[in-house]
Amino acid sequence: MKLEQHQITSHNERLFSRHQQQLAYVTTEIQNSALILQKLTDFQIGIPSWALGTGGTRFGRFSLGGEPGNIEEKLEDIGLLHQLNASSAAVSLHIPWDSTSNVPAIKAIASQYGLNFDAMNSNTFQDQPDQPQSYKFGSLQHVDKAVRQQAIAHNIEVIRQGVELGSKALTIWLADGSCFPGQLNFRKAFQNTLESLQEIYAALPADWKVFVEYKAFEPNFYSTTVGDWGQSLLYANKLGPKAFTLVDLGHHLPNANIEQIVSLLLMEGKLGGFHFNDSKYGDDDLTAGCMKPYQLFLIFNELVEGMDQRGMNHTKDLAWMIDASHNVKDPLEDLLQSVEAIMIAYAQALSVDRAALVQAQAENDVVRCQEILQHAFRTDVRPLVAEARLRAGAALSPLTLYRESQVRKELIRNRGNKTIATGL
Amino acid sequence: MKLEQHQITSHNERLFSRHQQQLAYVTTEIQNSALILQKLTDFQIGIPSWALGTGGTRFGRFSLGGEPGNIEEKLEDIGLLHQLNASSAAVSLHIPWDSTSNVPAIKAIASQYGLNFDAMNSNTFQDQPDQPQSYKFGSLQHVDKAVRQQAIAHNIEVIRQGVELGSKALTIWLADGSCFPGQLNFRKAFQNTLESLQEIYAALPADWKVFVEYKAFEPNFYSTTVGDWGQSLLYANKLGPKAFTLVDLGHHLPNANIEQIVSLLLMEGKLGGFHFNDSKYGDDDLTAGCMKPYQLFLIFNELVEGMDQRGMNHTKDLAWMIDASHNVKDPLEDLLQSVEAIMIAYAQALSVDRAALVQAQAENDVVRCQEILQHAFRTDVRPLVAEARLRAGAALSPLTLYRESQVRKELIRNRGNKTIATGL
Amino acid sequence: MKLEQHQITSHNERLFSRHQQQLAYVTTEIQNSALILQKLTDFQIGIPSWALGTGGTRFGRFSLGGEPGNIEEKLEDIGLLHQLNASSAAVSLHIPWDSTSNVPAIKAIASQYGLNFDAMNSNTFQDQPDQPQSYKFGSLQHVDKAVRQQAIAHNIEVIRQGVELGSKALTIWLADGSCFPGQLNFRKAFQNTLESLQEIYAALPADWKVFVEYKAFEPNFYSTTVGDWGQSLLYANKLGPKAFTLVDLGHHLPNANIEQIVSLLLMEGKLGGFHFNDSKYGDDDLTAGCMKPYQLFLIFNELVEGMDQRGMNHTKDLAWMIDASHNVKDPLEDLLQSVEAIMIAYAQALSVDRAALVQAQAENDVVRCQEILQHAFRTDVRPLVAEARLRAGAALSPLTLYRESQVRKELIRNRGNKTIATGL
Amino acid sequence: MKLEQHQITSHNERLFSRHQQQLAYVTTEIQNSALILQKLTDFQIGIPSWALGTGGTRFGRFSLGGEPGNIEEKLEDIGLLHQLNASSAAVSLHIPWDSTSNVPAIKAIASQYGLNFDAMNSNTFQDQPDQPQSYKFGSLQHVDKAVRQQAIAHNIEVIRQGVELGSKALTIWLADGSCFPGQLNFRKAFQNTLESLQEIYAALPADWKVFVEYKAFEPNFYSTTVGDWGQSLLYANKLGPKAFTLVDLGHHLPNANIEQIVSLLLMEGKLGGFHFNDSKYGDDDLTAGCMKPYQLFLIFNELVEGMDQRGMNHTKDLAWMIDASHNVKDPLEDLLQSVEAIMIAYAQALSVDRAALVQAQAENDVVRCQEILQHAFRTDVRPLVAEARLRAGAALSPLTLYRESQVRKELIRNRGNKTIATGL
Repeated sequence: MKLEQHQITSHNERLFSRHQQQLAYVTTEIQNSALILQKLTDFQIGIPSWALGTGGTRFGRFSLGGEPGNIEEKLEDIGLLHQLNASSAAVSLHIPWDSTSNVPAIKAIASQYGLNFDAMNSNTFQDQPDQPQSYKFGSLQHVDKAVRQQAIAHNIEVIRQGVELGSKALTIWLADGSCFPGQLNFRKAFQNTLESLQEIYAALPADWKVFVEYKAFEPNFYSTTVGDWGQSLLYANKLGPKAFTLVDLGHHLPNANIEQIVSLLLMEGKLGGFHFNDSKYGDDDLTAGCMKPYQLFLIFNELVEGMDQRGMNHTKDLAWMIDASHNVKDPLEDLLQSVEAIMIAYAQALSVDRAALVQAQAENDVVRCQEILQHAFRTDVRPLVAEARLRAGAALSPLTLYRESQVRKELIRNRGNKTIATGL
Repeated sequence: MKLEQHQITSHNERLFSRHQQQLAYVTTEIQNSALILQKLTDFQIGIPSWALGTGGTRFGRFSLGGEPGNIEEKLEDIGLLHQLNASSAAVSLHIPWDSTSNVPAIKAIASQYGLNFDAMNSNTFQDQPDQPQSYKFGSLQHVDKAVRQQAIAHNIEVIRQGVELGSKALTIWLADGSCFPGQLNFRKAFQNTLESLQEIYAALPADWKVFVEYKAFEPNFYSTTVGDWGQSLLYANKLGPKAFTLVDLGHHLPNANIEQIVSLLLMEGKLGGFHFNDSKYGDDDLTAGCMKPYQLFLIFNELVEGMDQRGMNHTKDLAWMIDASHNVKDPLEDLLQSVEAIMIAYAQALSVDRAALVQAQAENDVVRCQEILQHAFRTDVRPLVAEARLRAGAALSPLTLYRESQVRKELIRNRGNKTIATGL
Repeated sequence: MKLEQHQITSHNERLFSRHQQQLAYVTTEIQNSALILQKLTDFQIGIPSWALGTGGTRFGRFSLGGEPGNIEEKLEDIGLLHQLNASSAAVSLHIPWDSTSNVPAIKAIASQYGLNFDAMNSNTFQDQPDQPQSYKFGSLQHVDKAVRQQAIAHNIEVIRQGVELGSKALTIWLADGSCFPGQLNFRKAFQNTLESLQEIYAALPADWKVFVEYKAFEPNFYSTTVGDWGQSLLYANKLGPKAFTLVDLGHHLPNANIEQIVSLLLMEGKLGGFHFNDSKYGDDDLTAGCMKPYQLFLIFNELVEGMDQRGMNHTKDLAWMIDASHNVKDPLEDLLQSVEAIMIAYAQALSVDRAALVQAQAENDVVRCQEILQHAFRTDVRPLVAEARLRAGAALSPLTLYRESQVRKELIRNRGNKTIATGL
Repeated sequence: MKLEQHQITSHNERLFSRHQQQLAYVTTEIQNSALILQKLTDFQIGIPSWALGTGGTRFGRFSLGGEPGNIEEKLEDIGLLHQLNASSAAVSLHIPWDSTSNVPAIKAIASQYGLNFDAMNSNTFQDQPDQPQSYKFGSLQHVDKAVRQQAIAHNIEVIRQGVELGSKALTIWLADGSCFPGQLNFRKAFQNTLESLQEIYAALPADWKVFVEYKAFEPNFYSTTVGDWGQSLLYANKLGPKAFTLVDLGHHLPNANIEQIVSLLLMEGKLGGFHFNDSKYGDDDLTAGCMKPYQLFLIFNELVEGMDQRGMNHTKDLAWMIDASHNVKDPLEDLLQSVEAIMIAYAQALSVDRAALVQAQAENDVVRCQEILQHAFRTDVRPLVAEARLRAGAALSPLTLYRESQVRKELIRNRGNKTIATGL
């Protein structure tokens, strides 16, 4: 489903007058609003193909209806999101869920929606039908070389498909680990995994990156073989310059200071990308910014500071992706909320008075440091985010327009009530 | 599959001599070993019908083969466990997974294996096909009375089936809660749940109990409507004398002191039963005693002390059940390990020198308190647990005999490789 | 030290024009701003006498200088805070640190600063010189009746002092618990504590309340005898209508949902008061709102909703107090930041569109529920908080004026560099 | 205080007969008991000088009496421990608490007790009287070079003192970090710390090591500049071959898998040493093995396996130290319990059937892996630990003999009731 341009236009006209007042106010409050607007326009967030259907837990799944049943429909949904917010110009595919035999057609569809292909994701945490070897006891870590080879070959196949589509990166999230003390020799598991990764690394094209994602627990409940940023960094350093760490906000132990991790990975030149979501207990995969919006801001504060210090390009030098799973919300509405929360946090981080912060830090003026950050966080930057959308031809209020346009109703009519998105 | 008596006999004969030596030693080390042996023989642990198949996570499931496909086969599997360890004389059913139209036949099968029916479990966390109302937004807490009524009626139906089978208790685990701040009015959710529970309570036969299970998180990731022991106790007190709290070891926030909770619930006369398992991160549902065996002992230490103080019958006055989910183990082997760990912890707790402990506590002799508990824990009571089995006609080493008898191979031959147990 | 009125006036005049613009904007954004202003003016937060000096950890303390050395100087400091923000009209004393033999003089000083006496705090977690019994193994829980009696008598003495000063409540925070498994019989510890509390309760004047504060851990590291809200509620219910639970934000296990606890305690009519602070790991006692400002808002959201539903008076029916400890900030600046953060969260909660939220909840419109809450949170209400101060004759920017007036320099000159506040 | 040899002899004679029976049994149960006995005899654990007095929390300290008041008395106490258990032949000093001007005398005393000097500890987390710069805002990380230089100079002075005493290592535990978001630039803090460490590293003698200890939180409650093993390893790698990571069991986030960390650090050749203690919530500094004895065993299981694989010497190649703080126990009794728990865990780990474990792991026989580990853990090895002591001329039951000899009473008589140990 695609919106007509006049729908967006008429929506924006209705909200324009009030928006203008709000924008006028915020631009008096924030000094560098012009720069922020430019950066917001450039900033694009990858949408994961698996987040377009209703997510579930091991206890069940409650489908919504109208979910995309194939890659074409997934691109259609992301295209719609991008029409609405002009900030979702990339799609992150999951293989084999999104495998296609007709690459040119898929590329044409993506191009039509203005989408490109962000990092490709491999899957060695589930057994596919007719797969000779099982991943029950791991994949790249497995004690049996035949299993490792199968998993390596799958990753290389994902690279191959990614090359055809124009992607430039591979994300490897390994569920590998153990559920019980004694099950694994940690060192051998690490070495097996490293050797497997080296084979995959060798198959990377010159202009590709590989992201080694870490996760503290789940689905393994004793150890995970890429369990924290320290382990991921070990792998990335041993692999070489094309290997990087990927941070998923929900993949940490309780109370971890994620923004410090981000800062140190930037320092080491090894931060590769992000999976945004929010959580309270574990990998809850909730909407970005729904639970700890201040933490999201603090992370962006480190990202902006660290990338600027290293002369990195905010838009191109890191892979920005959402990784969420939507149990009780319309997935498309949830993605609109996630993107909005990310853009707000980014805008707030851009508005931080850096010079003042540097000075307050140099003077150990802790009170002032807090005042500077909280001022940036408490200032309402939503009109800036809306204005960036407006300038890019998208909707002032994407969620409002989505609902006014009765998108879900239309999708259900087109795709039926019982369709189930491939994926989790 | 059922073992022949001679298989058990010949197994025991082979291990007997060594067992005798070990038993002789431990009975010189432990003063009240005769009493412990008697109590171990009496102690029976309920096996959940859903633990007989391979468990899974939201990321996948790796089936083992030979899994039971119906209630008759589940009873067969538990019968085999009980033959092996003489400690698994009860089954805990889950409705609708284990619904049956032929109660007399099921009772006959259970009776043949020496099994009775422990607490019945209702299911309002998943939608069944053709169910008019959805539990997507909760069941007993739901804002819509029609959904609540459907969930109430289901629980009453579970009681009805339980009465026919000879069960005496209903366990209600509610997944109800919310995933996002603002989603629920906590107070209304509590009140709706309370009123729903009151209707169910009203349907309880005079000699029945209802167990209100609590859980901190999952599948809801912001709030749970029966989220901790404090909430469960509030419900149980408001419901009346037949309502109790049920403790599942994996349902707490990090670092919770579960043994203190157990002690206080006993003090209040409101501890109803247990779901045994072990975990490191959340509701990991791992084998009992695999991760924190000392904690399991400390819990039994409180149980034994508290029940004795209240004059409770160890065997009959609480419902002892396992609730685990087995991803990488043969489910039957896992259950044998869980039962063994529970019996060991129980035996250790029974061996604690209570008089000395009471005195050391009265003198604030903290060092001695620790010595007394750790002495009981470090003394190897496994020969006592084995002897209790031997006296009851079961195997000295259930796991060894299970493997020698190639049970899984036989089950796969009988039931096939692809069967999937009903349940999680 | 006291500010001259002209200092405040001239400060406000300097900021007035910009403030007017901001206020004008926010009053167009928020519908009920007049009501919010009134409620902000009425809202007063108790300042703990022990937060006026530099806090420390077990690893050390870094004094700032100019700290108050006696109760008179503490009242002077709080008087200054109240001059600055018109929101700190109460002091919460700690006995014996703040014991005084000259009650009329103290009352006169307090009255001069416009301060009244919030809940009194007893101290049975430290041994005072020449105290006959030691609290090493607990106080109200102690196995030795003589120790319990000493602790009971101390609490009754605190009530006596409070009555003279005009306080109306006693806060009991018990450090009692155990550091090692086996050290305590949990049930006896509970019963001893309950009986001790009953004796204290019996000594309460008719118009007094007692607050039973809970804490998960520290300084005891195995169990705490009033360890969570469930235990506190048990005590409060057994004690009677004058007993209530007090919530300190830092006293929970990781990931606890505090706002749900608040809601349920209000439902039960047993929420008595609050200790505000913020934390990442444990009882970190950081500035309110510095770490999780959204959580603080969510808590106030439950407070406002729950108190309104019960017809409670926001200002009088709960005891609002700060409990923080300032290692690296000027304590007075830190308290200004804490009060500001609390007022902001309160204002945000007052601005929530309740009718819309109720409707969205009734429709399970989770997306809209989130939008409503986050809109209230993201709207910048700081001008309202400033305006409330202005109307009450205080400073538009208390922190700015505090620094401009060089208060700390003056305090150091008056009180010296090495003074150490009584307390932690 | 020193025991007479006849006291030990007569104690052992009284327990000998029962010990012989227990030993005979365990040597039939465990195949490699002779080897284990040898290794237990060789194994020595460093006693921290600061653990000999009663520890405290920020809420208070309850002294026991008879505490050592200077380094001579501390050596005397450790000498007594070593007499009792023959496993405490090393002392770990803390400077400036243990600074001495008379090195030859101190060395003579140590030699007389059979003690040598384990890693030296520096202290840059507290301000000493007359110290020009303050560590309020950090030491090696400080924004001000003068503060960093003072901290560097202190560490070099500690090395100097250690060289005189015959120590071979420096442990640097940095409290450096921040309490509030924004306070620090994480990257600059890291770089400052690294440069400071490099200056200290340059001052290390050729045969010295430096241990970089990490800690997740406390006394800083937002970030710590050496916060986890990943950060410590970064420093150690950047410093060079003499730099290693030191693991303190209480310095992790909730639920961390410490044994995996240990295994990976060994793999990287960067594990330097250990601080043993136990905890439930944070850095609780409780007696080793009092809370999670199975975790302690699992850690030793990795240590033994990993060191053997690398051909490391169990006794010499890692620094084994206790770091605990004793609130409610006699410190000397507590240390006896800690050493006992460590020796038990070590003996259990040595008894693991490695060949069988390797095979079970190779076959993904998870059930058997667990059986192998739990068998080693559940077998009662205490008679082996006692026998190792007996052979070394120490006491069969150190704690019993300590109490029989009324050591504490004697210490109080000699040193008085009010003495306070230097240190925490």
